[in-house]
Amino acid sequence: MTYPLPALVNGRPDALISPAERGLAYGDGVFRTLPVIQGKPQVWPLHYAKLNGDCCRLSLACPSAAALLEDIQQLYADQGTGVAKIIITRGAGGRGYAISPEVQSTRIVMRTAMPDYPSQYGQTGVHLTLCNLRLAHQPRLAGIKHLNRLENVLARMEWQDPDIFDGLLLDQQGSVIEGTMSNILLRFDARLLTPDLKNCGVEGVTRDRILKLAPALGLQADISDISLDQLMQADEVILCNSLFGAWQVASFNGKTWQSQPLAEQLRNLLQEQHEID
Amino acid sequence: MTYPLPALVNGRPDALISPAERGLAYGDGVFRTLPVIQGKPQVWPLHYAKLNGDCCRLSLACPSAAALLEDIQQLYADQGTGVAKIIITRGAGGRGYAISPEVQSTRIVMRTAMPDYPSQYGQTGVHLTLCNLRLAHQPRLAGIKHLNRLENVLARMEWQDPDIFDGLLLDQQGSVIEGTMSNILLRFDARLLTPDLKNCGVEGVTRDRILKLAPALGLQADISDISLDQLMQADEVILCNSLFGAWQVASFNGKTWQSQPLAEQLRNLLQEQHEID
Repeated sequence: MTYPLPALVNGRPDALISPAERGLAYGDGVFRTLPVIQGKPQVWPLHYAKLNGDCCRLSLACPSAAALLEDIQQLYADQGTGVAKIIITRGAGGRGYAISPEVQSTRIVMRTAMPDYPSQYGQTGVHLTLCNLRLAHQPRLAGIKHLNRLENVLARMEWQDPDIFDGLLLDQQGSVIEGTMSNILLRFDARLLTPDLKNCGVEGVTRDRILKLAPALGLQADISDISLDQLMQADEVILCNSLFGAWQVASFNGKTWQSQPLAEQLRNLLQEQHEID
Repeated sequence: MTYPLPALVNGRPDALISPAERGLAYGDGVFRTLPVIQGKPQVWPLHYAKLNGDCCRLSLACPSAAALLEDIQQLYADQGTGVAKIIITRGAGGRGYAISPEVQSTRIVMRTAMPDYPSQYGQTGVHLTLCNLRLAHQPRLAGIKHLNRLENVLARMEWQDPDIFDGLLLDQQGSVIEGTMSNILLRFDARLLTPDLKNCGVEGVTRDRILKLAPALGLQADISDISLDQLMQADEVILCNSLFGAWQVASFNGKTWQSQPLAEQLRNLLQEQHEID
């Protein structure tokens, strides 16, 4: 069995994971996925701040930014372009939920190819489906990009059609939360709304960046509870994540939206930040 | 770095886990923890049935009972006594929630020591604390012993006192669900009640066994929604899991219960089943 994936575990090349790893046993850890362009991790300070904040929420020791940057530089020594996936776990420990004081966190950095999205997504937008799975309310975990992602896995199993880009997740009360791999924003005239993630969902770095960029486009950005009915009335629906930036939703739940310039404007603004970063 | 844990990964000794393992990335898998006495896994048919059922719920290919028994026999070739922990994951795959058709599930079997519980627990009972963390409602995952266990990890962080045996978990509505590492049963006169786990919690094998054994002790066993107030009124509170069987709760939330014979009777009945198994 070979593992073609270039990966560093605690800085060691091709190291593998202990079967006693709590990241495996309990999903006891957090992760990040970010683009690396010509060897340079994009908007790194924001990604590290989010990683560190997520670790704090779980009382997990976060490795230094320097150690992680060194790992990324080692995996991208060719100055190549791709994705860096970072996983920080509680570490390898004995059986049982209690955390032994000797346990030391495990730092995993992997290099994978940039996803090969069709170029027309930028012009035509993407298709979104509605998932049957409803996200559970857990305020203690809400917002964190942690390793307990079975809800996303089960939701992603709901469709096979390659033309569907992502699935919309509602919570148990039917409020709009996010895509399985993206955050969602809705434009109503000059207002940009994104769901409140206090009970479930992942607070992505790109969602935060867009909320901060919105005023530059004359938009008032707000976080709010959003119903499915509201979403269907939106002038524009946008998905975002760190890898593709922002894409407009072209169709969802029987409705189609005409292509509009906002998603492209947001992509350009996000891109400019990469260049000045 | 050494991993002293005796473990088999897909039947291979001392094999380690790929950093691309979906069990690590997403907690995409299930597990079992069962006692092995003199080389013999206890009530194996029930544990395998539960493992298989949990795999089905996640559309995960479950290894054959024969392959798992062979692993256990290899780890316990000395006819020793301990714990077998089985983890079945979706396997090592690429980045992203979608499951690649080539992914093959990973089978991990580990041997650990039997926990060294104080012998007086059988006579005096154990102390239970109330956790602040409330379990989320997720019917799609409820009952399954899956690898998304951050709720248990966070709940277990709430106490350090070694005299506290387990923490009671309520759900977001305040209903009694389970301990962090045990199921709970309440006796009211000749009725034995255990919480309904349709929205959260793990349906343990020992809980099922006790429900079936109860009539032999003149008890009517029922599954029901249980409030914290009801729990405080119970004549007897019992915790159970596969490793210790059944123990009475001696104190919880400011109340103490006198030692009564039910937990010991249940332990003896569970033990007899081991012997005829």
